[in-house]
Amino acid sequence: MSPSTPVPQTFRAIDVIRKKRDGVELSPAEIEVLVNAYTRGDIPDYQVSAWLMAVVLKGMTRPETAALTDAMLHSGDVLDLSSLRARKVDKHSTGGVGDKTSLVLAPLAAAAGVAVPMISGRGLGHTGGTLDKLEAIPGFNVNLSVAEFRRVLEICGCAMIGQTAEIAPADRKLYALRDVTGTVESPYLICASIMSKKLAEGIDALVLDVKTGSGAFMKSEKDAAFLAELMVETGERMGKQVVALITDMDQPLGSMIGNALEVVEVVEVLRGGGPADLRELCLELAGWMLHLGGVASSVGEGKQQSTKLISSGKALEKFKQMVELQGGDVRVIDDPKRLPQARKTLQVLSATAGYVASMQCEQIGTASIILGGGRERKEDSVDPAVGIVLHKKVGDRVAAGEPLATIYYNDDSRAAQAKRLMEASCEVADLAPAKRPLIHRVIGMSGEKN
Amino acid sequence: MSPSTPVPQTFRAIDVIRKKRDGVELSPAEIEVLVNAYTRGDIPDYQVSAWLMAVVLKGMTRPETAALTDAMLHSGDVLDLSSLRARKVDKHSTGGVGDKTSLVLAPLAAAAGVAVPMISGRGLGHTGGTLDKLEAIPGFNVNLSVAEFRRVLEICGCAMIGQTAEIAPADRKLYALRDVTGTVESPYLICASIMSKKLAEGIDALVLDVKTGSGAFMKSEKDAAFLAELMVETGERMGKQVVALITDMDQPLGSMIGNALEVVEVVEVLRGGGPADLRELCLELAGWMLHLGGVASSVGEGKQQSTKLISSGKALEKFKQMVELQGGDVRVIDDPKRLPQARKTLQVLSATAGYVASMQCEQIGTASIILGGGRERKEDSVDPAVGIVLHKKVGDRVAAGEPLATIYYNDDSRAAQAKRLMEASCEVADLAPAKRPLIHRVIGMSGEKN
Repeated sequence: MSPSTPVPQTFRAIDVIRKKRDGVELSPAEIEVLVNAYTRGDIPDYQVSAWLMAVVLKGMTRPETAALTDAMLHSGDVLDLSSLRARKVDKHSTGGVGDKTSLVLAPLAAAAGVAVPMISGRGLGHTGGTLDKLEAIPGFNVNLSVAEFRRVLEICGCAMIGQTAEIAPADRKLYALRDVTGTVESPYLICASIMSKKLAEGIDALVLDVKTGSGAFMKSEKDAAFLAELMVETGERMGKQVVALITDMDQPLGSMIGNALEVVEVVEVLRGGGPADLRELCLELAGWMLHLGGVASSVGEGKQQSTKLISSGKALEKFKQMVELQGGDVRVIDDPKRLPQARKTLQVLSATAGYVASMQCEQIGTASIILGGGRERKEDSVDPAVGIVLHKKVGDRVAAGEPLATIYYNDDSRAAQAKRLMEASCEVADLAPAKRPLIHRVIGMSGEKN
Repeated sequence: MSPSTPVPQTFRAIDVIRKKRDGVELSPAEIEVLVNAYTRGDIPDYQVSAWLMAVVLKGMTRPETAALTDAMLHSGDVLDLSSLRARKVDKHSTGGVGDKTSLVLAPLAAAAGVAVPMISGRGLGHTGGTLDKLEAIPGFNVNLSVAEFRRVLEICGCAMIGQTAEIAPADRKLYALRDVTGTVESPYLICASIMSKKLAEGIDALVLDVKTGSGAFMKSEKDAAFLAELMVETGERMGKQVVALITDMDQPLGSMIGNALEVVEVVEVLRGGGPADLRELCLELAGWMLHLGGVASSVGEGKQQSTKLISSGKALEKFKQMVELQGGDVRVIDDPKRLPQARKTLQVLSATAGYVASMQCEQIGTASIILGGGRERKEDSVDPAVGIVLHKKVGDRVAAGEPLATIYYNDDSRAAQAKRLMEASCEVADLAPAKRPLIHRVIGMSGEKN
């Protein structure tokens, strides 16, 4: 059924709401008609928000989740990238603090011969957004038309843009409603939202990075694993290869948080440096992308290839090529001082000596938002220059008076607020904490060797 | 806080929705601000419908239910009837088939010296409505202004009107939204809707008739008792005397269903006749109204007084007085042929001999709606003349070919449909069924002798 199919005479939104309220499984046709009629404006917001709340509280079966994903996916254009010879593989993260892996992975996988048609989002809540990070590069255009997107992809093998009006319009409309009706927090709705947008990219395979810990949307590993399984199963039902890594977000990823600062760290990793955790996660995710992209026979071989593409400089060259093709100032890559710079800095010092025992990761993300690095309201603009550089991570020794972090800022009162939040977020104790693994679990592709 | 109090800066509807979704108890202030802001149009339908669905699925505590009732009650005018010396007592039924007790009870209690300021509703679903029944009397005006209502009440001791724009506007707005969002079916929301309207009448006490059985909204006695307890407790929290009788609606009440037909049966009861079940229930409810109205020292004494007021003709005189004061043609009371008459009749015959084992009471109500006696959609008009007269009730012996009921109709195809429904609704079996009590339980006023 296409979005232009009229609503059948017998369809009544109230019946679908009541069924879901009473825990009765909806048919794929009922879900499809509901989504299409809502997208066209034939069903009012107030009926759909009641239905969404019933979904949040009653859940969905796997077939319902797949039907919702499918209806949202087909509410708009699905890119046809079959003219590209390479396999198309994308990666999606559920969002975290300091998570800049997409900027490393797209050029890295493209350098290996995988096509990466990446459509990303803005910062959400306490987390940063890939588009905001890319826009820290002067001139970088994330608003390419589909034709321009395809052109960059054909030339360079990767391209990174924002959601277009043509892709999954049902998701845009539903997400706006969920945001104001307390119906964001449902694994079924999150799954359908993510998977509908990603599958509309015309990809063959998808690597999911599902975060867990104090800086993640899914704080518990159980919830993260549930969402991961749901997304893997939904993707597989639709004939795609999907794997999900449950990875740690109990502290920020890497050392830098803030849009321009994160671009600096991305370049460091592409040069073979950067913090160990960020490097490790990039290689692991790249290993999977190369394997699913058909250019490596195993994840391990994919990691080895990725390591070589970094040390040879080919991954960095690919990044430069993409930046140039999307209108960005490539000079920032060799000369990071050309990136937007904050006017002032401020140290966050440790009051006592000991070990960094924990970091309240969501609060650190919020500190960066307060500085202006993200949006408190949708209409806010982002200051690309501000952010936080961590000098210590969980488990590190710290002396009394030693800096835990440096705050990069442009506004004194915001900096003072962020400093207080940072001080409250970093716990220093006598004993070193137990080490949490960076990669908790891999879900999906169970026959595969990791 | 009055309805004109502005929404506090710190109030966010989304927070209240999320709390209810997560099972956190809301404060009275949060509920009050939500209701008042919605009534004024400061909160959109789509947020309130999500909140309503969360209430349906997560329930409410007793303090939340009382706060919601209170906020809805104070969303409009609360009648001040303190100038009337008599105690003000009303009666409310949750709705059934053939339930015309209000038309008997208002004049009966008024004849005993109790003031009855009754604000009633239209038919809902398969049930009839008091206003539709009153309007079967030519000229009867249910749309009195508050001043006219008060005048009739002062002269006659009882008055019966429909909801006005000034009384509980929050309920009218919320009910319209619940109706289209699958959020009608919640005992907490039903309680707040009923109690807010009834308490806005400025009454001292309230007798609730909560129906249970195949023709009731609450099919099970357990659900009926839960709603009854909720309404009694909510009323008592607000300083009113409230009692609830759980009464049987597993078959229609009395013998006549349909607006003019029910007026006929009301007059029969007020003349000391009428079907036994209807007479018994009227006397029981009247006994409670007289007792709570302070004119009888017990329910038993109230029933005795009521019996005398019927046999002396004083109750019927009071009914005539009210009809006259509200513009109705009083001649219909002594000459029922002056009521609207259906053009045709049709018998529903029993196919076999035996006992009437059960009646699908909701279907019988639906048959009356199909004939035109109620509304399938809000905008439909009602045909006062049509309806059904039952010749047999559950437990009665019936011969093969003997009439179970007579259908009064004006439209042939509707009559055929109603006849099929009636035939399917009445089960005739070899053995007489066990007798169900008419009054299942009394809830509230536990120290009182019944």
